[in-house]
Amino acid sequence: MGATGAVGQQMKEQLEKRDFPIKDIVFLSSSRSAGKEIEFKGKTFTVQEAKPESFKGIDIALFSAGGSISEKFAPEAVKRGAIVIDNTSAFRMDKDVPLVVPEVNKSDLGLHKGIIANPNCSTIQMVCALQPLKEQFGMTKVVVSTYQAVSGAGIGAINELKAQAADFDHAKDAQAEMLPVKSAKNHYPIAFNVIPQIDQFADNGYTLEEMKMINETKKIMHDDSLAVAATCVRLPVVTGHSESVYVELSRAATIAQVKQAIKDAPGVELMDDPSNQIYPMPLMAAGLDEVFVGRIRQDLDNPNGFHLWIVADNLVKGAALNSVQIAEALIEENVI
Amino acid sequence: MGATGAVGQQMKEQLEKRDFPIKDIVFLSSSRSAGKEIEFKGKTFTVQEAKPESFKGIDIALFSAGGSISEKFAPEAVKRGAIVIDNTSAFRMDKDVPLVVPEVNKSDLGLHKGIIANPNCSTIQMVCALQPLKEQFGMTKVVVSTYQAVSGAGIGAINELKAQAADFDHAKDAQAEMLPVKSAKNHYPIAFNVIPQIDQFADNGYTLEEMKMINETKKIMHDDSLAVAATCVRLPVVTGHSESVYVELSRAATIAQVKQAIKDAPGVELMDDPSNQIYPMPLMAAGLDEVFVGRIRQDLDNPNGFHLWIVADNLVKGAALNSVQIAEALIEENVI
Repeated sequence: MGATGAVGQQMKEQLEKRDFPIKDIVFLSSSRSAGKEIEFKGKTFTVQEAKPESFKGIDIALFSAGGSISEKFAPEAVKRGAIVIDNTSAFRMDKDVPLVVPEVNKSDLGLHKGIIANPNCSTIQMVCALQPLKEQFGMTKVVVSTYQAVSGAGIGAINELKAQAADFDHAKDAQAEMLPVKSAKNHYPIAFNVIPQIDQFADNGYTLEEMKMINETKKIMHDDSLAVAATCVRLPVVTGHSESVYVELSRAATIAQVKQAIKDAPGVELMDDPSNQIYPMPLMAAGLDEVFVGRIRQDLDNPNGFHLWIVADNLVKGAALNSVQIAEALIEENVI
Repeated sequence: MGATGAVGQQMKEQLEKRDFPIKDIVFLSSSRSAGKEIEFKGKTFTVQEAKPESFKGIDIALFSAGGSISEKFAPEAVKRGAIVIDNTSAFRMDKDVPLVVPEVNKSDLGLHKGIIANPNCSTIQMVCALQPLKEQFGMTKVVVSTYQAVSGAGIGAINELKAQAADFDHAKDAQAEMLPVKSAKNHYPIAFNVIPQIDQFADNGYTLEEMKMINETKKIMHDDSLAVAATCVRLPVVTGHSESVYVELSRAATIAQVKQAIKDAPGVELMDDPSNQIYPMPLMAAGLDEVFVGRIRQDLDNPNGFHLWIVADNLVKGAALNSVQIAEALIEENVI
């Protein structure tokens, strides 16, 4: 569901690439995109307009078409026997809905009641890197500042960045209609700029993106007492979110222990060699599956404090790959 | 000294704009740029090659031509009776050299022995916003993640970003010779990318830029016990550094008190109205004198913790303006 969107296309590619065991596949969308054609494993499929009865006979339904579409169709899919893996924020904080990053909390899948939520992109990559540290050393506090790509706001935002970037001399007056939030009153240029707003503002002054990182991290890591703070920022980058993360561990650790824990973590790649200028960057992480971690430093004032630089492709591990990994885990864990 | 560089040009503009009391002015540079012409207050000046005797009869010498030039010529200028205001990092941590942001520690000027240092750009804007909070509530801890513009690396880096941004489809393979550090072994594209390295690496895994922010902040704010941590990151932005800053205060404060303290601070402008999407952005701060602060939020777990978003033009308040303000303060305080 949402087959023609930026994440939907990545989901299709992941299903192909990982050779997910599929007997039949149906590509669904809104009426606007219905009729388009999609190539999948050498065959051509026509995208169909989603209706409640589209989900009859479906085992696993991957949703990535916006929260309101999920709210409307996910219960219909569940009613017809499908397990929904939803990439929107519609159900993430629902206590009956497991919020899953397979490397972190695969065992939560067994608690599902039809819907499983895929976390926010910026949350997924962060918890992949934090979980091994929490397991080995305990964790009390997380402060994250994000450097997020425009592809998280869809294909329209990518096209807007491209158009603005081509007119270097008029960056300040560039036409802007997509960012920070398409439906918001004000729009600002993103080329050669930085916008400290992702999603709408909550009443407490935090954005909804920041509150997602805060609340989802606690839910996925099963720790309501973990202090989490986030500042989420949009940059003129096409794909790949970066995060500057400060963590305080419960117990003292050496820098070597922290690096080893990151190195051993599933789905995570240590990329940390300052003497050779090796560290993760979004332009190099785009299209790859891993969560890359570098710039690991012990805090100079607090031996339990560590600084990490975490980069991943927000459309891959941050969205499509994680959804497909959830589907794979459903099979592995005999949940389906 | 360094009249033809990005900061030197801004210094000239600030001297004109602020009508600094000047009887005579001499524009100096390396032999490479000598002979160029500069317009100043309606008159044309020819840039001269710097020599030790160039500083004879000079009251105030503004230096911005790189650390090695300052090391060579600043003592010569002092020997001939000039007060040097040095924008490089050459003397900043020297205990005999005041490191001054006039809004924060103007009184240190009286301690000078000929050289006064202008702090690093990313430090200046941060301490302007932190000082009023420290004064009113005390401060124990600062964690900053920066979002820095390429103009901090000179005109060559601006031209490189411009060339790379024009070729959207080949961003990953773009030619790169300037960033992260011109003299370093590896260079990476900056357009549509994020580089978590500014300046060389120190042995402790921090970059020199990060160590500057840490050490200079303690020196300017007169507090060696203040815990400061920094992660410095270069972005595809031409001018204007942004900073995501987490601070822990010694005493509890309300969000209203913190906003009022920022609003009342000299040189700082509160720009914080989430309901109208008002917050600082580098594209809008470029060319302006003020340090802009917004996105002020109380930490959700620590009532003494606050998050700030600080933006300023790195060439203006971060360099040229602060240097000229130091010169003005020398006069005001009867130091010269």
